[in-house]
Amino acid sequence: MYPDQFPRNAWYVAARSAEVQTGRLLPRFLLGDPVVMYRAEDDIPVAMVDRCVHRQMPLSLGRLKGNQIECGYHGLTFASDGNCVRIPGSTRIADKVRVQTFPLVEGNGLIWIWMGDPDTVDPGQIPDHHWYTADGWTTAGGTLHMNARAQLLNENLLDLSHLTFLHPESIGSPEIADIPVSVSYDDRTVTVQREMTGVECPPFFTHVTGINQPIDRQQIAEFFAPAFHITTTALKPSDDTDESRMARQKTMHAITPETRTTTHYFWSVSRDYATEDQSVTDYTLEAVTGVFQQDIEACEAIEHIIAAWEPSYPLELNIKVDAGPLQSRKIIEKMLATEGATTGSRPQDRFTDAATRAAAQAWTDRQAALDS
Amino acid sequence: MYPDQFPRNAWYVAARSAEVQTGRLLPRFLLGDPVVMYRAEDDIPVAMVDRCVHRQMPLSLGRLKGNQIECGYHGLTFASDGNCVRIPGSTRIADKVRVQTFPLVEGNGLIWIWMGDPDTVDPGQIPDHHWYTADGWTTAGGTLHMNARAQLLNENLLDLSHLTFLHPESIGSPEIADIPVSVSYDDRTVTVQREMTGVECPPFFTHVTGINQPIDRQQIAEFFAPAFHITTTALKPSDDTDESRMARQKTMHAITPETRTTTHYFWSVSRDYATEDQSVTDYTLEAVTGVFQQDIEACEAIEHIIAAWEPSYPLELNIKVDAGPLQSRKIIEKMLATEGATTGSRPQDRFTDAATRAAAQAWTDRQAALDS
Amino acid sequence: MYPDQFPRNAWYVAARSAEVQTGRLLPRFLLGDPVVMYRAEDDIPVAMVDRCVHRQMPLSLGRLKGNQIECGYHGLTFASDGNCVRIPGSTRIADKVRVQTFPLVEGNGLIWIWMGDPDTVDPGQIPDHHWYTADGWTTAGGTLHMNARAQLLNENLLDLSHLTFLHPESIGSPEIADIPVSVSYDDRTVTVQREMTGVECPPFFTHVTGINQPIDRQQIAEFFAPAFHITTTALKPSDDTDESRMARQKTMHAITPETRTTTHYFWSVSRDYATEDQSVTDYTLEAVTGVFQQDIEACEAIEHIIAAWEPSYPLELNIKVDAGPLQSRKIIEKMLATEGATTGSRPQDRFTDAATRAAAQAWTDRQAALDS
Repeated sequence: MYPDQFPRNAWYVAARSAEVQTGRLLPRFLLGDPVVMYRAEDDIPVAMVDRCVHRQMPLSLGRLKGNQIECGYHGLTFASDGNCVRIPGSTRIADKVRVQTFPLVEGNGLIWIWMGDPDTVDPGQIPDHHWYTADGWTTAGGTLHMNARAQLLNENLLDLSHLTFLHPESIGSPEIADIPVSVSYDDRTVTVQREMTGVECPPFFTHVTGINQPIDRQQIAEFFAPAFHITTTALKPSDDTDESRMARQKTMHAITPETRTTTHYFWSVSRDYATEDQSVTDYTLEAVTGVFQQDIEACEAIEHIIAAWEPSYPLELNIKVDAGPLQSRKIIEKMLATEGATTGSRPQDRFTDAATRAAAQAWTDRQAALDS
Repeated sequence: MYPDQFPRNAWYVAARSAEVQTGRLLPRFLLGDPVVMYRAEDDIPVAMVDRCVHRQMPLSLGRLKGNQIECGYHGLTFASDGNCVRIPGSTRIADKVRVQTFPLVEGNGLIWIWMGDPDTVDPGQIPDHHWYTADGWTTAGGTLHMNARAQLLNENLLDLSHLTFLHPESIGSPEIADIPVSVSYDDRTVTVQREMTGVECPPFFTHVTGINQPIDRQQIAEFFAPAFHITTTALKPSDDTDESRMARQKTMHAITPETRTTTHYFWSVSRDYATEDQSVTDYTLEAVTGVFQQDIEACEAIEHIIAAWEPSYPLELNIKVDAGPLQSRKIIEKMLATEGATTGSRPQDRFTDAATRAAAQAWTDRQAALDS
Repeated sequence: MYPDQFPRNAWYVAARSAEVQTGRLLPRFLLGDPVVMYRAEDDIPVAMVDRCVHRQMPLSLGRLKGNQIECGYHGLTFASDGNCVRIPGSTRIADKVRVQTFPLVEGNGLIWIWMGDPDTVDPGQIPDHHWYTADGWTTAGGTLHMNARAQLLNENLLDLSHLTFLHPESIGSPEIADIPVSVSYDDRTVTVQREMTGVECPPFFTHVTGINQPIDRQQIAEFFAPAFHITTTALKPSDDTDESRMARQKTMHAITPETRTTTHYFWSVSRDYATEDQSVTDYTLEAVTGVFQQDIEACEAIEHIIAAWEPSYPLELNIKVDAGPLQSRKIIEKMLATEGATTGSRPQDRFTDAATRAAAQAWTDRQAALDS
């Protein structure tokens, strides 16, 4: 069974830094809730519930006035700390009138959000992803969307045997699926490692490194529960003994639930080879987007099956390579059990989820119309 | 909380007179039920349930034969009083075989329907809207559709402070929201009045009246529960002491639920100024349609939020200007309590509502295909 | 009330023979379940559940390797008997690892599937439909799809009085609905017969036979529960005493539920007249498709009404010509009661049905994209 809720006492990527701009309201559903983000005049990003406390109007349909949002319906105005500073027609504003805000942390090109208990916020829990902007590394990245639950992608990324079958024409090679993995884990992470020697160089890597002969390839899939992955690939020609000539790639995947059954997928590939070659960056962008679209199509097909079976669930067969994915479920279930009902997400039956998906889609369409 | 049902012992606008034509079947969902309307040979409009009692075929897919409808599936034929007059293959027709019909009253360009207890029909309850066709007044109007529950629009129309924020470029001005209102009500009406002196003349009124200086403006929002509003605007330059030079406008809004969460919006603006000027009529049509589309977009955004929260409801903050809207809820709730379950609308859970919306959309699409 | 489940210990048409081709995976929802079909190297068609036992990936997204399907996600491979023959990364495969397969029988241009208890499979229950390929007969046929529950079409086909009202411009004539029928039935079939003498020749038959004078027409509607119909039409000019000059037509309708509320409609018309005339075949294809689309539109309109009323059901009036349709319901209900819960279809509430419809649509769209 896939977890039906999301841990809320945790960091999720809410946006790429470039998406949150001064003078612009960015609406986005995160963890099933409407959120509006903007960049205040001191460049600090702000996030609050995208719903006026008065009559549920999305604040993202309002106006940004300096650091404050004025609701576009009846003009209630909220400061960046969520406090209401104006109620037209009323002279007194009760202290309790405020919109919930969410702690954000920005760094290395990403904006992270904490949607749980504000008293337990701990920026130290944000996974290291310094390669995004580090010297000696060049990064390409993008944002994708998936009509399937986030955990399907978490499990996809922890069982890279699928490269052989889903991505044979790009990053997969025939041997991967048969080579055993080692799995380790702790309370919040799962690591799945696979060492390959003398295997085919997959087409993508031949294209970007020029290597066209058997390679040694190391693959490390790290999951930082509940919503971040770093996939490390390191490869060199098998007959080359010089470790320093190894080509390394750090692929970061932030898997943020939009709703119970839809997902934001923020990704980036940082490489330490051909770092000055723009054509490699361009090719990486295009090729990796194609690869991840294949993952999304697989997860969406599976989501259709799961949705048609809910609330029951078709029996699953677990095999050897599922050790990592199953461990990720256990960690998330344990996180959910630990935080209990204290973080106050609203209950989501199947119908509520459908309505939330429709709302999230309307929010996205609205933003797309504004952007075009 | 918004009422979840509609009072049925009440008049609703079912159509504009021009929509119901001789020789044509007009299908439309009203109050969650399929209705077919047509104009009989004596020009009297007829409405009945759009569903054959035999096998649920919409009668609107059948044929009008004189004053009778022949079902397009198996030929059962119904007179304009609903009685079955033919069952092909059967020689006997039981007296009880009939389709439910609804009382209609036509006048001043509108057709009103009573979908509740036929024994309590009272044409005297239809609100006066004689300006639609009165001498000395010129009217422009149209029909709109909203994917949101009707009550959201009822409340929009009873709190005109939103003009400042939602319609600043047309009929709103900065002062409106801060000027206090007086509210009065009785068992079936709510009146919200606002007097403004020396305020900006909003762009729309400058365009249609030529006034380009501070004005005195009176705004009266009257709600005739459960489904009709008259908004009166009267304005003149503040320095003009001659009351006879006041420009008056009566905007009528008939807010008829199509389903639990979708709404027909029939509107008209009657004016006593520039009554012979067609360009003012044309401009009014275009500008007012644009204004009401803004209201619809706001209500649809809010509907998305409400739908995502159902069956629970996010807490609302009530402020001073909500006195009128809240009174409208109370009246509707009292009407519902009074009529009890006697009017026999079917129960509507969220799923039934979704299916009804899909049906209503199919009916509308079918009609649009026929019309084009 | 319409039955809410489908008998599973029964044959349904899964595909036309031409649809299942060597080297190609054909995904299709049948009876609410995802099924993948292909033609093995010995030309024998194969059907199995379109869902890998490992992680629910549709097998139709995988690769056909000889007679085996390799899952496109993690490479589990299944033989045509459903047994798993490869699990990448695992050396041992437990005997129980298999995908459910379904017995198929192919003949006379159709592929029949048995989705119930495999121990009770009885090919003898497949209705005779030899006209499809018989000497002296020429056949035209096609595949249609309907967004309505199958039983609506079963009942449509057992009450041909609707020809007068739904198909007056093609195969109906004014007299049909008023001429009484004789109804007979047994445990699995219903037969409704109507004999007409000296009636108008409907436009379709005038076009294909050249007869343009009063005719004697025999109409026999046979239902082979739960999913097959043969409609026999025989006609000749009333003043022609030579029976051998009668024009005969056998219309076969295979009504296979896709989901609880959507239906595959496989049809063919075999005729014993003008058998060599391609223009008659072409005209039949076009005209009959048009006629059946009218039936589909009627059933879809009714489905909208039923869906809006569920889980309750609006009262129905039964009339004389309903004897055949009502008998078909009784037979299906009895079949369901007899097989009980032994055949293991999953429960389908309204929401599960909506999700299954969405999945079935996605499967169809995917196939259409591949085919184009």
